[in-house]
Amino acid sequence: MSVDGEISSKDIHFADHPNSVGMITPQKVVLPDPMALEAGGVLDRVEMEFETYGRLTPAKDNAVLICHALTGDAHVAGWDPNPVGELKQFRKTKPGWWDQMVGPGKAIDTNRFFVICSNVLGSCYGTVGPSSINPATGRPWGLSFPVVTVSDWANQQIELLKTLGIERLRAAIGGSMGGQMALEMALARPEITMGLIILSAGHRVTNQGLAFNAVGRHAIIHDSNFRNGEYYEGPKPLSGLAAARMMAQITYLSEESMVHKFGRRLRGKDTPDFTLTGIEFEMESYLNHQAESFVKRYDPNSYLYMTRAMDYYDAALIWGQGDLAVTAGRIKAKTMVVSFSSDWLYPPELCRQLVAAMCQARRPVSYVNVPSRYGHDAFLVETDAVRRLIGSFLKN
Amino acid sequence: MSVDGEISSKDIHFADHPNSVGMITPQKVVLPDPMALEAGGVLDRVEMEFETYGRLTPAKDNAVLICHALTGDAHVAGWDPNPVGELKQFRKTKPGWWDQMVGPGKAIDTNRFFVICSNVLGSCYGTVGPSSINPATGRPWGLSFPVVTVSDWANQQIELLKTLGIERLRAAIGGSMGGQMALEMALARPEITMGLIILSAGHRVTNQGLAFNAVGRHAIIHDSNFRNGEYYEGPKPLSGLAAARMMAQITYLSEESMVHKFGRRLRGKDTPDFTLTGIEFEMESYLNHQAESFVKRYDPNSYLYMTRAMDYYDAALIWGQGDLAVTAGRIKAKTMVVSFSSDWLYPPELCRQLVAAMCQARRPVSYVNVPSRYGHDAFLVETDAVRRLIGSFLKN
Repeated sequence: MSVDGEISSKDIHFADHPNSVGMITPQKVVLPDPMALEAGGVLDRVEMEFETYGRLTPAKDNAVLICHALTGDAHVAGWDPNPVGELKQFRKTKPGWWDQMVGPGKAIDTNRFFVICSNVLGSCYGTVGPSSINPATGRPWGLSFPVVTVSDWANQQIELLKTLGIERLRAAIGGSMGGQMALEMALARPEITMGLIILSAGHRVTNQGLAFNAVGRHAIIHDSNFRNGEYYEGPKPLSGLAAARMMAQITYLSEESMVHKFGRRLRGKDTPDFTLTGIEFEMESYLNHQAESFVKRYDPNSYLYMTRAMDYYDAALIWGQGDLAVTAGRIKAKTMVVSFSSDWLYPPELCRQLVAAMCQARRPVSYVNVPSRYGHDAFLVETDAVRRLIGSFLKN
Repeated sequence: MSVDGEISSKDIHFADHPNSVGMITPQKVVLPDPMALEAGGVLDRVEMEFETYGRLTPAKDNAVLICHALTGDAHVAGWDPNPVGELKQFRKTKPGWWDQMVGPGKAIDTNRFFVICSNVLGSCYGTVGPSSINPATGRPWGLSFPVVTVSDWANQQIELLKTLGIERLRAAIGGSMGGQMALEMALARPEITMGLIILSAGHRVTNQGLAFNAVGRHAIIHDSNFRNGEYYEGPKPLSGLAAARMMAQITYLSEESMVHKFGRRLRGKDTPDFTLTGIEFEMESYLNHQAESFVKRYDPNSYLYMTRAMDYYDAALIWGQGDLAVTAGRIKAKTMVVSFSSDWLYPPELCRQLVAAMCQARRPVSYVNVPSRYGHDAFLVETDAVRRLIGSFLKN
């Protein structure tokens, strides 16, 4: 495979990835109608990127929707033969972000289910967002792109299902921000899904989550390259985005996983160099590396839109005037909530609030708190536990 | 009092501050000898700012040393009549940072004790640091200032005591970074103090602490105004410093205290404005305000030096080749360790490691974990509990 060439199936060691969905074809759809947004804007033309795996039955009754997290995309499983721009380097060696979960015979079994995932509004992976061209001006939207919310994302998913002729899902599944989106779908349109799986998410972010999001945006907005979001033709505010990502990365891990991964080990040396601006610890090297890789593939403006949407979301306020039990009473889907013991971004206590509210409202809910050292990342890392939980949920 | 004028005792409502030490006089000392630093540099001329409260007995046997935290200074109690530059606005309305603890009849009783606090090397409050003038060049040191460590700070305190003719302290007391400094004094020179009080601190920072420090420095270093620390004659990297401070501020609170203080309350409105770059939540407003106030009074380079010193400190490595019990065996001072239940920057588990090591080494230690919602800030906020604990420790 040439560095810039198209990826073909002979480039991939499928033996390392048994039961892969193989080469996939990203799909685009333009919604037939303009979309009115919760914050007041209207998007006349909503182009969306999505992927599907498996086959839709003639009765269209085997669809499962996966909702991606903050910086995720529609590419859940298999290989994209022609990744766009900066994504090339990330996608040519690795399959989609939840490949371990989705495929023939896997927990989300593509022999049984027609699996869908779409990129959310405001993101930068194929669905319209601030880096897209505004048809009215011929230039990138930047901050003139309307503010989007989790409710808008839920509507966006529902509209996509309409275009696919799907009236009801077997399950909506999401982790972290994706869990909030799946929850919101089940609240906004209770008949839309028979099952609901929420991993590492709750009915809102914590105050700490709110605060970290605010600092991340602050770093981006105050980067001298930000220029009120009009940076697309010049240098981007990547230092700010890097700081935001490094900080977020801390919230995705746990103290325990950091100690296990890095401890206080120095990077490639036995004694410190006593440098103020260089790298001393493995911990620092890891954060820098994460940031460097992230800023190549993510749009700073999208980071503002995504985190704001997370901030605003409070299911109890939207559907129960602050009463979570009233909110939970709307849910008709059979629900499973999964938290992870060391997750402090969406801590088990928060997840349990939703579970308790569903119990109080006598809605069908099961709850598992998976013992894990991996913090918030656990929903992507604790593959065996998540596979078993999702697999058995979908079997019933 | 005029805005820029000198503060006099008639400006201060002493009735609001009973048992105040009153107006104080900041003091300066130049150490008689050059100081060799742990990281290898030598400072030929060490000028230090310090304050004292109470009177030293002729036998010089009633001294108590207070060690300040990351962004603290020597001004512990009372009013500074002539605060320098940017400090004016902060010091004219408020007494020193631990005024509630230090004064006649207070927990650290200036009728009994001669209380000392000095500003640490590398800081920006009167002791030499990167913003000081390098005598060799006539210009600010910037990053050519040598790297300093917690060991250097301990030595600095010991040298100050020498100049004051004090051979032994009644107690060394510090919270957070100051607790590490006090600990290091008791390890480096076990005879220097009879008592040791460590609040909200341990023998090293956590991995999360290491990571947050790294991100804070990253934000400063990548601010376009940083210019490798040579910013003193132009705009300073204050956006980076603001991001570092906002993030640090999150680590000083706890989720519980945030919920209690702010919850999800919007700032001055009932419904959100749906703004990406403006303020929506009280939480954001608080963080912004903290940052704005901080960047007026702190030098970004000093922030690099202080956080690096915290990173490097690992008492177990320095004194026990990694064995904390061996390290703890050096301590001769009667020790009290105080943690706070919701502190996640120096969590109770970390504080207990030091306590357990002292027990194992059969050193005299008492330990209290104060139930508190205030997170790391608790050591400054839980005044009643801290007052009782310190008061009774010093009485014995």
